Amino acid sequence: MSRSPRAALVCVGSELLAGQVNTHQAWLSLRLRGAGFDVVGESSVPDDAAAISAAIRRSLKAADAVLVCGGLGPTFDDLTREAAAAALGRTLRLDPGLWARIRARLRRDRACVPEENKRQAFVLSGAKVLSNPNGSAPGQMIAARGKTLALLPGPAPEMCPMFQRAVLPALRRRHALGIFPAAFTARLSGVPESVADERLAPVRARWPRARFTILTAGGEVSFHASLTTGSPAEARQARAAVRRDVLAAVGEFAHGEGEATLESALGARLKAKGLSLAVAESCTGGLLGERITAVAGSSDYFRGGVIAYANDVKVRRLGVPARLLARHGAVSEECARAMARGVRRAVGADLGLAVTGVAGPGGGTKTKPVGLVFVAAAGPGRKEAARRLEINGPREAVRQRAATAALRFAFDQV
Amino acid sequence: MSRSPRAALVCVGSELLAGQVNTHQAWLSLRLRGAGFDVVGESSVPDDAAAISAAIRRSLKAADAVLVCGGLGPTFDDLTREAAAAALGRTLRLDPGLWARIRARLRRDRACVPEENKRQAFVLSGAKVLSNPNGSAPGQMIAARGKTLALLPGPAPEMCPMFQRAVLPALRRRHALGIFPAAFTARLSGVPESVADERLAPVRARWPRARFTILTAGGEVSFHASLTTGSPAEARQARAAVRRDVLAAVGEFAHGEGEATLESALGARLKAKGLSLAVAESCTGGLLGERITAVAGSSDYFRGGVIAYANDVKVRRLGVPARLLARHGAVSEECARAMARGVRRAVGADLGLAVTGVAGPGGGTKTKPVGLVFVAAAGPGRKEAARRLEINGPREAVRQRAATAALRFAFDQV
Repeated sequence: MSRSPRAALVCVGSELLAGQVNTHQAWLSLRLRGAGFDVVGESSVPDDAAAISAAIRRSLKAADAVLVCGGLGPTFDDLTREAAAAALGRTLRLDPGLWARIRARLRRDRACVPEENKRQAFVLSGAKVLSNPNGSAPGQMIAARGKTLALLPGPAPEMCPMFQRAVLPALRRRHALGIFPAAFTARLSGVPESVADERLAPVRARWPRARFTILTAGGEVSFHASLTTGSPAEARQARAAVRRDVLAAVGEFAHGEGEATLESALGARLKAKGLSLAVAESCTGGLLGERITAVAGSSDYFRGGVIAYANDVKVRRLGVPARLLARHGAVSEECARAMARGVRRAVGADLGLAVTGVAGPGGGTKTKPVGLVFVAAAGPGRKEAARRLEINGPREAVRQRAATAALRFAFDQV
Repeated sequence: MSRSPRAALVCVGSELLAGQVNTHQAWLSLRLRGAGFDVVGESSVPDDAAAISAAIRRSLKAADAVLVCGGLGPTFDDLTREAAAAALGRTLRLDPGLWARIRARLRRDRACVPEENKRQAFVLSGAKVLSNPNGSAPGQMIAARGKTLALLPGPAPEMCPMFQRAVLPALRRRHALGIFPAAFTARLSGVPESVADERLAPVRARWPRARFTILTAGGEVSFHASLTTGSPAEARQARAAVRRDVLAAVGEFAHGEGEATLESALGARLKAKGLSLAVAESCTGGLLGERITAVAGSSDYFRGGVIAYANDVKVRRLGVPARLLARHGAVSEECARAMARGVRRAVGADLGLAVTGVAGPGGGTKTKPVGLVFVAAAGPGRKEAARRLEINGPREAVRQRAATAALRFAFDQV
């Protein structure tokens, strides 16, 4: 087994040192690790040429591949190009063809192209330009003394596809030849992280050379396993064996594998069975619909829904009986069931899915505290089910976990 | 005016280089900056003594105060104590009193105290022990050659209160005596980042000693200004003067200041005028409602809405005429206006706000390409307005920017 190639990250932007959460570090680490790289460090530096340059130089010493994110915009404080040139001792030159492409792109959106954008057309000598279909900042990639330096734009919708399409394949070719990573990710829901972790302990013990990460967010748990092997066949076998062990331990909580989200897994299941879906939302205020429609192609099974934030909207648009509301309150299993039945009828779908609860911070009572949530599903032939949840955490966490619970509930019903 | 004191962060933990999002960086940066510190850098390092030690040494050179989070647990891979001792050239010694306190705390929770926990009672010579009411890992703080090094536990529920209670006051006393920070943030929408940046260039020139950051996300732009002054009065004056200059340059795009979000600014305006709101969403699928209801207390003005993803839901639930759909299509100004009128009636609100568009990646045509979005608002007395947008980017960006444009549109109408 060969040594794993090493990668390091440099995240550029004063905002990262002024309150903005750095999400690139996690996103890139996970994917580099899955490709067999050891991520040996990350540095966040302000929009300061000397600091960026020092971080690049230091990272190139420690790692085979260095990814720099951010600082490729058109403005005065976008200094990554200059800093990378200084770190490598290379020059920057204007690429006239690139400048023409940037101008053409910008003209689609506005009347005049600011002269400032010209800075984005300067390229490190010897670098390959990485096109950016999602923004004006092109990336750059350069091989120097057996190492690779890649400059990527800061915004995630531009950085992520550029990394996947152009950077990761090149890094694999240059630094991970002969290394065959075996990676498996199980996506779990409806289970607390500590329970999943306990169940997976024997799997970890059985694979001492593999590396494992368990992560949790918004009520979902993901379990990542990766190891490096010496051949494609060995990688396939190892992956299959790890997968079997993981699913034997936590299979009943798995809604998918790899990049599958809970919403895409639910969508695939609905599509396979030819069923359509509608949602009725109170405390989630649209989040459930938003997550379902984040999946491209969701119009194949998602028909729409009603955001019934005010009680009389529940009555008038979902047909929840006013007497039911008066007797049980809007946060009740009875109301959730009536909402699910109502939206199924109102929107005309096979399956109605409803959420109602107390998101907080206000509105909690002794009998109905903040975090109390009911989800319900209604299907053809009066088929119905509901579930009660008590969720700890602030408003945003309650809403996210309530939506996750509703999606998982629907996944289990379909 | 004195120089701002400098702070640097070291985040310890292999999980931070394997997919776990680093939230300490943003949390600590914001609070340090608010106290007048310049946060000059952050490093994430794995559970490796040499890497931790190198990061501490490097950070102590660059900053007056260095905060290290994580690696203070009891297990073999908790190496921050040893690494800090090596970085400072100091010894670690067992503090018997501290060991007794740790044992006493652990005995509350379990039958036997693992010998491993003894590692947590080793203290850097000359360091002050910081008690941890929320966990077994005590913190440490040490002054060395005019600098301060603080070691903090990794879990947020332990780290955050320890920082607020013991570390920040000490850092202010030691490094920020007589420094009074002035900060102003303008929140902008309905303007591209490059245009805002160009307009703000004269403000930056007028304040050469201030620091500025311009950030963009989901179609919103925020502009942060901060400078340090020598007295509370000077700080108040500087803030007012910067604020005046910024608003003179980009005031018409500002929806708020400080932490105000676009959705909270819209909510405040609706509340002030006693108006209620309803939404009709097609391509955003619930995102608009989700963002509006992310604001605690939004039930004061938000009544609900209809997610009309399928065309017949637009007809049946929003009363969009089938002939209108046949003639103009669902992605049209006419349809957006009919949706806004329809949801206003269906839900019973003063203002109806609608979005329809092509989010992509599929569904685009030559005349109606991906990114074409219409927003419309309908108010009392047949008052109506609509706007056409062409948004570049992938599905998620189109949806986010469409929702932002709709919120800004409503903000301007109210």
